[in-house]
Amino acid sequence: MKIENPTPIKWQFAQRAEQLQSSVIREILKITMRPDIISFAGGLPSPETFPVEHMKAAFDTVLSQQGKIALQYGPSDGYAPLREWIADSLSIPGVTITPDQVLMVSGSQQALDLLGKVLIEEHSKVLVETPSYLGALQAFSVYQPEFVSIPTDDFGLLPEEVAKIADGARLLYALPNFQNPTGRTMSVERRFALVETCARLGLPLIEDDPYGALSYRGEPLPKMLTMNPNGVIYLGSFSKVLTPGIRLGYVVAPVPLVRKLEQAKQAADLHTSQLTQMVVYEAIKDGFLEKHIPSIRTLYANQCQVMLDALTEFFPAGVTWNKPEGGMFIWVTLPEHIDCMKLLEESITQNVAFVPGAPFYANEPQKNTLRLSFVTVPPEKIREGVAKLAKLIAAKI
Amino acid sequence: MKIENPTPIKWQFAQRAEQLQSSVIREILKITMRPDIISFAGGLPSPETFPVEHMKAAFDTVLSQQGKIALQYGPSDGYAPLREWIADSLSIPGVTITPDQVLMVSGSQQALDLLGKVLIEEHSKVLVETPSYLGALQAFSVYQPEFVSIPTDDFGLLPEEVAKIADGARLLYALPNFQNPTGRTMSVERRFALVETCARLGLPLIEDDPYGALSYRGEPLPKMLTMNPNGVIYLGSFSKVLTPGIRLGYVVAPVPLVRKLEQAKQAADLHTSQLTQMVVYEAIKDGFLEKHIPSIRTLYANQCQVMLDALTEFFPAGVTWNKPEGGMFIWVTLPEHIDCMKLLEESITQNVAFVPGAPFYANEPQKNTLRLSFVTVPPEKIREGVAKLAKLIAAKI
Repeated sequence: MKIENPTPIKWQFAQRAEQLQSSVIREILKITMRPDIISFAGGLPSPETFPVEHMKAAFDTVLSQQGKIALQYGPSDGYAPLREWIADSLSIPGVTITPDQVLMVSGSQQALDLLGKVLIEEHSKVLVETPSYLGALQAFSVYQPEFVSIPTDDFGLLPEEVAKIADGARLLYALPNFQNPTGRTMSVERRFALVETCARLGLPLIEDDPYGALSYRGEPLPKMLTMNPNGVIYLGSFSKVLTPGIRLGYVVAPVPLVRKLEQAKQAADLHTSQLTQMVVYEAIKDGFLEKHIPSIRTLYANQCQVMLDALTEFFPAGVTWNKPEGGMFIWVTLPEHIDCMKLLEESITQNVAFVPGAPFYANEPQKNTLRLSFVTVPPEKIREGVAKLAKLIAAKI
Repeated sequence: MKIENPTPIKWQFAQRAEQLQSSVIREILKITMRPDIISFAGGLPSPETFPVEHMKAAFDTVLSQQGKIALQYGPSDGYAPLREWIADSLSIPGVTITPDQVLMVSGSQQALDLLGKVLIEEHSKVLVETPSYLGALQAFSVYQPEFVSIPTDDFGLLPEEVAKIADGARLLYALPNFQNPTGRTMSVERRFALVETCARLGLPLIEDDPYGALSYRGEPLPKMLTMNPNGVIYLGSFSKVLTPGIRLGYVVAPVPLVRKLEQAKQAADLHTSQLTQMVVYEAIKDGFLEKHIPSIRTLYANQCQVMLDALTEFFPAGVTWNKPEGGMFIWVTLPEHIDCMKLLEESITQNVAFVPGAPFYANEPQKNTLRLSFVTVPPEKIREGVAKLAKLIAAKI
């Protein structure tokens, strides 16, 4: 029983969807999955850091002891003991975060989508760093804002510039720790100045913090959330400290906003996997992360140093890069005339990949920039890849 | 380091978010979680049907054999072997569904959100059944459509009415098998007529099918997808045949739409848990569902019969209800003057809960209707609850 020769549908997409594109990065990643490619393009954490046995034991415990609850529908705001754990972990002397400020989401990318859905009107002004995290630009874009890029220097965004451009803005989005894509860290003074400025302007400040725990020195800087829990929306994630494939993150925000986000979450996918939340709670409740995270830091710090050494050794004069204090990325600036999108095409023929910087800019792209990730490539391959890339760049200078 | 006495933010929500409300049902569910309540309100499958040991074994196998892959980021369209399995399971002689038509999502509620995001413009006309699934109304509402209710009778929507109201419509949403909330089943003839009408009009037809496998007689009716794979968007779910707490569903649609949905999925949450998808594939690849689903059918058919018998025994004249051929719900119509929202208030004082029918109507609510779920309540409690409810209703007639 089948309709014969039906008229094919002319798909008419909503305006917000017409502009949606597949992420440049994910397209590059598809190419660079080939095993012969040395890929500095990934934003993926190193699988070496995944505590497979520990997770397996946690799944076993939860399914053995509370299987029927874990496999049933759960509450939209999330698994209560995990929300309590998160609230405790973010509280500091003098600043208490409560569990009703916490909403569990399916990775912090979903928090960005829900925040866009709830806060951004068509043509709303949204302030972002220059450059900013591509996933956030994509998530917000769906709601058709007007992005305004906040001027930055090597230490992140310039708080004193914010007031000049904030008129009518709906939110400010910042990634203060080891930013994706630049690896930059915002100083404590700038954090405080930014929080103060946003508080004065009544401007919601989103603090996206997936890498905060990955400081190579092991000393995380104070979170902006703790400087003003009534004005800062904090996004956390288990992707970089536990594993990303399970998709688990959280938003911490003032209660009126959290309740609205919870309603949006309910309409979007009812709730995040109850099993995943219970297993993560089981996996971390006895202090596992305190033992585990230092091993990730050490690995990434070593990998970072290998790449920094290789850059110093091989890259020609006229090329600059930062020295990250944590996280997964190095940001490289080439002489102005070099277009990194074209450089990528050439480097792929040499079996080396990276991510061009242009897509990370909300407004005028700086085409002579690129992002290098060092966490998943073995040291000898880092040296080989950097050397090849250096040769291609040198030929253009 | 904390801002002293910051100005509290006046939250300004986007227009689409202002109208978001918490689901009436989820609010009722919170009340009815009390163990002393006999709740016919739930839309939850029976935990008795959850194959806990089988899932535990599947988690163990996947984490033991492919742990690092399962815990890493995955592709936005989903785990390829599972997409292939789904495509195969939906293909019938003469109609081949291909894996590139399948997008994995975090429960079919997410499919509804993504479809709304991609297809619905503000003021777009969206055709829905009378009444319709509340979760779909909620998901679509975010994108501010104008709902038009398609006339229905006891056998579901009337295909001949569709052409009269379809002018300018962006999509038609239907739940043909054991509908939530009415338990109604659309006949094969009506399915075909509906598919034909939509094809003629070039109108995308969404076939939401979470309960399709739960036919009490074990004979599923033909899917509208197979009648016109170029015009039907099929939503499937593992929630009712395996477990809901893991949040796993899928959309099957023509390729141009799937690619757009994939982009929207990427912006919304990157991808659905890679681990969950690999585990579900591991759990079902060797024919598990074929053995497992009949046990769910038998349980639900028996529970349904207990409730039907109790309704016949206790409910007063003037009250009518349907006899479902599958699924989880019975729909009750009371004399017109009875408002079921008020009835619910009274019945909760008697420790019995149900869901009033009004919220399921996109336009004019029929307030004298209610939905009863029978799958999670033990037989003796079904009789007790129905008897109490009958007494309250009888007092109003």
